[in-house]
Order: sequence, then structure tokens, then C-alpha cells
Amino acid sequence: MTRPIFLLTDFGLTDTYVGIVKSVILSILPTACLVDLTHDIPPQDVRAGAYALLTVAPYLPTDAIVVAVVDPGVGTDRRPVAAQVDGRTFIGPDNGLLSWALATLTAASSPSAGEPTPIRAVVLDHPEVWLPNVSATFHGRDIFAPVAAHLASGLPLSTIGTATDTLRSLVLPSVEREANDGGAVLAARGEVIHVDRYGNLITNVLAADVPANPVTNVDDFEVRGVAAHYQAGDGPLLALIGSSGRLEISAPNASAAAMTGAGVGATVVVTSADAS
Amino acid sequence: MTRPIFLLTDFGLTDTYVGIVKSVILSILPTACLVDLTHDIPPQDVRAGAYALLTVAPYLPTDAIVVAVVDPGVGTDRRPVAAQVDGRTFIGPDNGLLSWALATLTAASSPSAGEPTPIRAVVLDHPEVWLPNVSATFHGRDIFAPVAAHLASGLPLSTIGTATDTLRSLVLPSVEREANDGGAVLAARGEVIHVDRYGNLITNVLAADVPANPVTNVDDFEVRGVAAHYQAGDGPLLALIGSSGRLEISAPNASAAAMTGAGVGATVVVTSADAS
Amino acid sequence: MTRPIFLLTDFGLTDTYVGIVKSVILSILPTACLVDLTHDIPPQDVRAGAYALLTVAPYLPTDAIVVAVVDPGVGTDRRPVAAQVDGRTFIGPDNGLLSWALATLTAASSPSAGEPTPIRAVVLDHPEVWLPNVSATFHGRDIFAPVAAHLASGLPLSTIGTATDTLRSLVLPSVEREANDGGAVLAARGEVIHVDRYGNLITNVLAADVPANPVTNVDDFEVRGVAAHYQAGDGPLLALIGSSGRLEISAPNASAAAMTGAGVGATVVVTSADAS
Repeated sequence: MTRPIFLLTDFGLTDTYVGIVKSVILSILPTACLVDLTHDIPPQDVRAGAYALLTVAPYLPTDAIVVAVVDPGVGTDRRPVAAQVDGRTFIGPDNGLLSWALATLTAASSPSAGEPTPIRAVVLDHPEVWLPNVSATFHGRDIFAPVAAHLASGLPLSTIGTATDTLRSLVLPSVEREANDGGAVLAARGEVIHVDRYGNLITNVLAADVPANPVTNVDDFEVRGVAAHYQAGDGPLLALIGSSGRLEISAPNASAAAMTGAGVGATVVVTSADAS
Repeated sequence: MTRPIFLLTDFGLTDTYVGIVKSVILSILPTACLVDLTHDIPPQDVRAGAYALLTVAPYLPTDAIVVAVVDPGVGTDRRPVAAQVDGRTFIGPDNGLLSWALATLTAASSPSAGEPTPIRAVVLDHPEVWLPNVSATFHGRDIFAPVAAHLASGLPLSTIGTATDTLRSLVLPSVEREANDGGAVLAARGEVIHVDRYGNLITNVLAADVPANPVTNVDDFEVRGVAAHYQAGDGPLLALIGSSGRLEISAPNASAAAMTGAGVGATVVVTSADAS
Repeated sequence: MTRPIFLLTDFGLTDTYVGIVKSVILSILPTACLVDLTHDIPPQDVRAGAYALLTVAPYLPTDAIVVAVVDPGVGTDRRPVAAQVDGRTFIGPDNGLLSWALATLTAASSPSAGEPTPIRAVVLDHPEVWLPNVSATFHGRDIFAPVAAHLASGLPLSTIGTATDTLRSLVLPSVEREANDGGAVLAARGEVIHVDRYGNLITNVLAADVPANPVTNVDDFEVRGVAAHYQAGDGPLLALIGSSGRLEISAPNASAAAMTGAGVGATVVVTSADAS
């Protein structure tokens, strides 16, 4: 059995770009197992792609190969790379797209001694595993797809590129915390990092950042408490810890994004009702 | 070979929810065969999901496993269930989503004696076949996906839950028929139950409900006869028996929905030109 | 291993039409390998479907089966056909949808003697390889899907239909070229044939049609030179040879379609700055 190949791009599904990538992979490796993560990353939005990859990373099979392409710099001197953490391998442009997923997996897969698992990365510089003609505009087809097919068929990382220690990273928006002398969180300030299909406002505030008896403010809206599920709460909005462990603002049977007008980047402040 | 797993959700394809569900299944069962039915059920629209599942059910392989998730009550006391008719197994929330497909298959697979095939249902209450941590908001990932993977790998229904006889059903909108003494239909009143991508208005009026020399009215529009195909008819609108055996209103090379302004729930009355 | 089946339709992903087609194929051939090319061809736009198929054709595995359905004439006397070039087989309505892909592959796969590879085509007239009941509105489900499954399982073309020499073709919009006595291109006039997700205006002008020191005009916009990649150029717009070998107008980190207002059919004129 070959390693499964997961695809995450901003190609959309209206054009045939995704179909071409899959055709190239299956031409090289007819038994390939291909899985779409999403192709609806907003065009050229590297940050949104990095966030999407971060949400999936912990659930990927441990031998997964991920082809991730959000690549406004295709054809420039940005490098094509592959990076491996434990058994999972990520292939894509070196523009930070892979960085949040890699950081999460490195931390999560820390072995017993507490040392983070090292990332093994290579620059893709072995054209013999690419398509014969490489365009300046579609490395997903010409470089990343064939490299993925060759890796899935069993080639080791060393045969597709040259080791590198320097991958570009995106800065994860940070959460400011205010704590008392005992270390208990009194308040946290973060931001909305994703709005999902249901209109849920997903923030970068983690469960551990939320103070006791929380009051969450986003724009002019205030939500008290943390609900147990999407139908709980006594107001039109509720706050809860979503499926990725992050605080999110939701509206039962409605869209919190539509209701509040808030979007990615909106400031979210969580204080404790006890503290006031 | 493992049983194929079909997915029908309201997750959309823009977020990574579908990708995460597939990652979980493939992590448990690397040889899984995954097929998307649709992920574009309108958010939280259980009825639309039930209709979509109904249209697919008769065509599913007889060993299919379907994971269906349109689940506004996730995290509440609504039960996660699985139900089996002949060899096909449906997994999802017990909110009526599965009910129309189950009813159709029960009737259709009736053995020779005329008895409907029984539905075997279980409440999913065996956490040992779930992910270790179950969130309150994403049972598709935490419960339904791993249960599907285990079923596909060959586990029997009894190992994933406890038998139940009470599944929730949605009421199918009914068709009122008027017949003459001989039983021939003179008129039928139903409604639009789906508008498809082409703008076809699909009704709940079955072929057997349509009187001789039919005249179909939807809103202020009247269509005479039943056309043989989408290009037939002499008006801007035509009525025909669509691919699921239901009367639909269509517009050659155009959208009947746009032309009439009618949508789901619009009343459809079919009378006989002979009767007037 | 069975031959892989690729799907290209205008069914969209919101309804269950694609899911039903896949269900039918897997019911006949449980080991089928199914790959989506795109299902977002604009409804009933045969020309857009032909273009999409053309872009994918050269990258398909050499044993690929393609089911292509953009079929406004379904149920009329338009013929269902299958056509084979070398090992690849295309199945769909005989309305020109397949013609550009077939023409490309015939030319491209020309053997050494310079003779184009012949197309072997059949009319699908063997109902024993169809579903038992054939509707007038969904031949994708009732004819094309089962035929594809049978071909993928190894049936030869002769068992699914009767040979035909006359397939319908769409006229490819042509490029007018002006050349000097030595044959060098001085100017070319073509048109926009596709607008992709990024807003790139893809034209039918091939790399060989572009004169030296080109100046490209689309509507009131003028672009000088041919850029090496999407980030090059010193204006808000740039022209480059895209991944399918065609001239395209692009806007770095923006949509050229939105910027120019141009769409499919817009005239594109390329002249040489040397000539003026």
C-alpha cells in the first residue's frame, strides 16, 4: 500500500487545476490514494492556508503526505520545499504556508524526554523527479505533484531534495494574558482567526487562556459564560470551546458573523466577571 | 476489500471539517474507500439533508456505509445512531436526517412475501470505538467517523451500539389526490421539495399522482402536458417526470426557479384538462 | 487494478447528481478509482466543458476513462458516444464536448511517421450495459456511469457500442496571424477563452503566435512585454504564457478580470512594438 496523499490548495474546484494535479499523480503512481482537504483557501491567502493546515494536522494519518499550494510567489525565487515531522511529510512553497502545522506537530509529538520532534526539511532541487517541462506558474502540477507521487511510492526524502535548516515561518497572532499573582488568568486579548461556514467566529484564544466566569467581548457584543454546546446559552450569541480547542463565538441556528459583523482580525477580549 | 464509506454533510468544502473526517477514517482504516455525496446541504437544514439522502439511497452499493451529518443538536441529548436496511448502514444524528432514506429502502427492498425489510438500529454508546476525546461540537470527527471506519473494517453493528426501536422521523410533505370513482387521479396538490443547480423545481408529486392530460400550476404559472425531455414543449416552461420519478418544472436552457420565482415549499397543483 | 475513471460535469456539488453517478459506478465495480476533474462547468455550457477537458487531456493517465457530461440535449436524438485515442477513452454526449480534447490528443500522440493517431469512436447502443431503466433526463447515471464501470473492469470498446466515423465537433475560436515575408509573426488577434478562479484572462493565443516585443491589448488595456511569472512586470497588469501554453493577462495579487472588466469572448490583440 502506498502512503496517502492529501491536497490543500487555493485552486478552487471550478477550474481543472486540481484535476490536473491528480492526473499527474495518478500517471506516476496509479495506486495513489488521494484525499482533498480543501481547495477553497481564498486565492493567494497564505495565512488562511496555514490556519487550515493547522486544524487538520493532528488528525492526519502518521504516514500522510500533504501537498499544500497557496503560492503567490510561484516562479520567483521562493523555494519549493518538503518537510517531515515523524512520519508525516508536507510539500509546498517555502512561504510560511506549512509553518503552523509543522510547529503544532513538532510540539505535539514531543517524545518522552520533552524534546520537540525535529523537523527534517529539504529544498526540492532534484528535477529528475519533476515533470520534464516546468512552467513558471503551476508548480503544483510540475513539481509538487510528481514529488508527492514519488514519495508516496516509497522514495526517501533525501532523493527529492537537499537538506535545509531554514524554513520561513508566519507569525501566529499572539494572545495577551493578564494573570494574578497565583498565575490564574484574569483576562485575555486575542483575535478572530477564522470564520467558518456556519458563521462561527473562531479565535486564537485557547481554553487555557479563558478566565473563570468569562465575559467575552467582540466588537460591541458581549457574551457571558462558556456554553456546553451550540444550542445552549440564553442569548442570541454564545461562546464555547470549539472542536479545535479554541474559543469561538457562535449563534444558535444562525451566523454569529452575520449577527456581529465581525470577521478575521476582529479583537476579542475575555475578562472575568469575578474580577470586576 | 472494505465496505465503501459515503459522506453527506452540511460542512461545506471551504473549511477543513470534511478533510478532518476523512483523515480520522483513514487513520483507523488506511484502505478506506471514501466517496462524497454532497457537503453543500444548507447549514443545519435537516430536511434538505434528508431529501438529498433519499435521492441517493436506491443507487448506493448494497454494502455501503453512509456517514450523514446535519446536526444542529450536536452536544445536546439527541442520540448518535446507526441504522441498517439489508446491507446498507447509515450513521448520523437521530434527528430525522436518515428517516426518508430508511423508509424508501425499507419499502423498496421488500422481499417476495411483501413484508417490508426491517430496519436494525443502534444507539452509538460504545465509546471504545470513538476518538479518545469527544468534543461537544464535532461528533462527525469524534464519533461518526471512527464508527464508520470500524464498521467498514468488518465490525458488526452490535459492537458499536445498543439496539433501539425508536428512531425519529421527519414527516414527508404529503400529496393530496382527488380521484374519480374508478380510482383514476383527477387532480393532485403537492409542493416543491428541492430546487437543483439548473433551477429545476422538483416536487413531491410522483408519476402515479399525475392525471391524464395534466395541467400543472405553480404560483401564477401554468404548464400543459408532460414533456419527454428538457428540450421539448412549446412554452418557456415545461413539466416532466424527472430522474427520481418526481414531477418537475423545468425551463429549456434556463432556470425555472429564476423564471417563476418559486422555491422550496411553493404549492404545485396538477389538474386534468379532461376534467374541466 | 482497474482503469481510473475521471469525471467532468456541469452537475455542481450541491445536488447529489455526482454522488449518484459514483454510487452507480461503485455498485458495478467496487474497486473503481474515481477522480473528480471538475463539476462546476457552467450549467449546459458545452463550450466551457470542452475547454476544461482540453486543459486536462494531456495529463491524464494513458489508460484513463473520462465520463464527461454537459448535456442540454439529454433525451433528444443526440447520440451517447465513447471515443478512444491511444489508451484513453472519453464517454459522453455527442455534442462537441469531447471534440477539443480528442483533437489535442490525436495531434499530440502522433507516432513517428507524423500520422495523427486515429480516434476510435462508438455510439453507445448496447442497453445491456446500461441501468435497466433509462430516464430521459439523467444519462450520466443511466448510461454513461455503467458504461464507464464496464470499460474500467476490462470490457473492450466493441462490447459497448457500434463503430462510428462521425463525431460532432465544436469550432475552436481561431487566431488571426499577420506575418512578415520571413514568416515571423507581426501581430495576432484572438480572444479570451476562459477566466480562472484567480481572475486570469486566458486566451487562445499560443506562445508561437506572440510576436517579438509584444504589446497586448484587451479592451482599453495595454500590457507591454511577456512576464516571467505572476509577480513580475511593472504595471498593474501583466501578460505571460500560462501553464497550458496560452497567453494570459494577469494582475499580481489581484484579479485581471475584475480590473479590466473583460470576460470570455473579449478580443485580444497582440502586436509587436518593433513593428510600429
